[in-house]
Amino acid sequence: MRFTPRGTRFFDLLTDAARNLVTATAVLRDLIAAEPGEREPLAKRLHEVEHHGDELMHTIMVELNSSFVTPFDREDIQALAGKIDDVLDFMDTAADLAVLYRIEAFPPGTDVLVRVLSRAAELTAESMPGLAKVGELEPYWIEINELENEADRIYRRMLAHLFEPGGDALEVLKTKEVVEQFELAADAFEHVADVVQTIAVKES
Amino acid sequence: MRFTPRGTRFFDLLTDAARNLVTATAVLRDLIAAEPGEREPLAKRLHEVEHHGDELMHTIMVELNSSFVTPFDREDIQALAGKIDDVLDFMDTAADLAVLYRIEAFPPGTDVLVRVLSRAAELTAESMPGLAKVGELEPYWIEINELENEADRIYRRMLAHLFEPGGDALEVLKTKEVVEQFELAADAFEHVADVVQTIAVKES
Amino acid sequence: MRFTPRGTRFFDLLTDAARNLVTATAVLRDLIAAEPGEREPLAKRLHEVEHHGDELMHTIMVELNSSFVTPFDREDIQALAGKIDDVLDFMDTAADLAVLYRIEAFPPGTDVLVRVLSRAAELTAESMPGLAKVGELEPYWIEINELENEADRIYRRMLAHLFEPGGDALEVLKTKEVVEQFELAADAFEHVADVVQTIAVKES
Repeated sequence: MRFTPRGTRFFDLLTDAARNLVTATAVLRDLIAAEPGEREPLAKRLHEVEHHGDELMHTIMVELNSSFVTPFDREDIQALAGKIDDVLDFMDTAADLAVLYRIEAFPPGTDVLVRVLSRAAELTAESMPGLAKVGELEPYWIEINELENEADRIYRRMLAHLFEPGGDALEVLKTKEVVEQFELAADAFEHVADVVQTIAVKES
Repeated sequence: MRFTPRGTRFFDLLTDAARNLVTATAVLRDLIAAEPGEREPLAKRLHEVEHHGDELMHTIMVELNSSFVTPFDREDIQALAGKIDDVLDFMDTAADLAVLYRIEAFPPGTDVLVRVLSRAAELTAESMPGLAKVGELEPYWIEINELENEADRIYRRMLAHLFEPGGDALEVLKTKEVVEQFELAADAFEHVADVVQTIAVKES
Repeated sequence: MRFTPRGTRFFDLLTDAARNLVTATAVLRDLIAAEPGEREPLAKRLHEVEHHGDELMHTIMVELNSSFVTPFDREDIQALAGKIDDVLDFMDTAADLAVLYRIEAFPPGTDVLVRVLSRAAELTAESMPGLAKVGELEPYWIEINELENEADRIYRRMLAHLFEPGGDALEVLKTKEVVEQFELAADAFEHVADVVQTIAVKES
């Protein structure tokens, strides 16, 4: 028997890490709605959320190294925690670059894109407790794939708009750099779901 | 004994998925030769090819989840199917962006780059039936590596040409975005070959 | 018992591959300090270093395929060699693009960024012989993570500077393309360390 009560500790920690992503998307929503001059304290707040994520990641690694029994292969739990951390990194980078590059405005569509990220974060947080029955998480990874496709469509339309003739190329270049982080965050949510699907395939 | 007749079903499905890449590169060749106004139906055709690839991927996953015996580790078959799917996604994205960004013209060299992708697709399709004797596929992954290097060289020269002074920066930016997908597709063919090589190493 | 004297051969080869990265960063430091007209022979020199890395990679693969006993899972040794090779590829690409795109000057901060890469290379080379006691390499992967964060900070500030209004967008675009390779090299050092950490987790 591979699943033991001990395993629930990992599911709790991964759920905490995913809930932290919900917190991060809430800060992001405030940040993209804020005036340029008001972005810095929100970027700092997001950086604290990212730091909390690092601590959770560290706790998971310590737990992994001290547990004799793990609910899945050790490297899969590590991969899950690592991919959740990647999502957070992209969000943190978006906020950091928005401040650093002093971009004038987030392009139209940014709010829709960040709403997709919010939904992906909530869905991930709701699904982590279900890792104990990983084979039943198919609806989760299917919806995450749909959300990633939606994020992709929104992102491409935003770029098509940015690239329209007459724009300032340098401003376009740096705005693209910031908005790209949101698209990378959507990809990273899909990579979390890919690991879950790989675990389900192994267990089947 | 790990290899059973059952396994041939996976090799057939992976071969189908690789053949679908050959179809995709044929559509791409038409698309980059077409007038801007004629690109949209070809992008739609490529999207259908991509949808067929998704169905094959789904069939492989269902098969994986219902098979008691698999020719390789389940996660390696999943990885192979996933990497083949990545190639298709980059091709589909290239076509989609070419239409969406209304790029004026594909830069000189695009046809050479797409011919390299055609060759990589054919080679991959020819090699998948050989998975039963994966240790003998070394010539396949060596040639794929060479093709990726060639794609890289062509891509860099195309960019050097695009970056020459006097160009319209916004047009350069969006053309680069489209052509980059071809280079990413060449990388993705290499990632397919990397998984094959990893399977061969495990089996050795 | 999984560790045998045979295993030390792999650790020696991986150490050689990591030392080759130290050589590469030394060439890079010369290249970014050189006049534009003097870059080509240094890019050629770096290409030879990259070729030597390919040979080491090949030797490791041959060794893997002919060894009955390996100190870690075969695919993890392959992954380690592959990730070290990735670092080298990014450095080689940076040099190649600097010549090909004829960039006017490396932006301020490039020397600091390349110094971080030098330190990461030295640290990796010092740590590879410690693979025999992989659980004790935690200080290595922690410092690599710190170096990657530092590289990230430097890179972002360089971009913020490049993006300042008044710059030539095409020159910015191609300079970013070159400098990005240094940042990707720093990421790739972290991916080497990630594999080491994964091995340590498996062994714990």
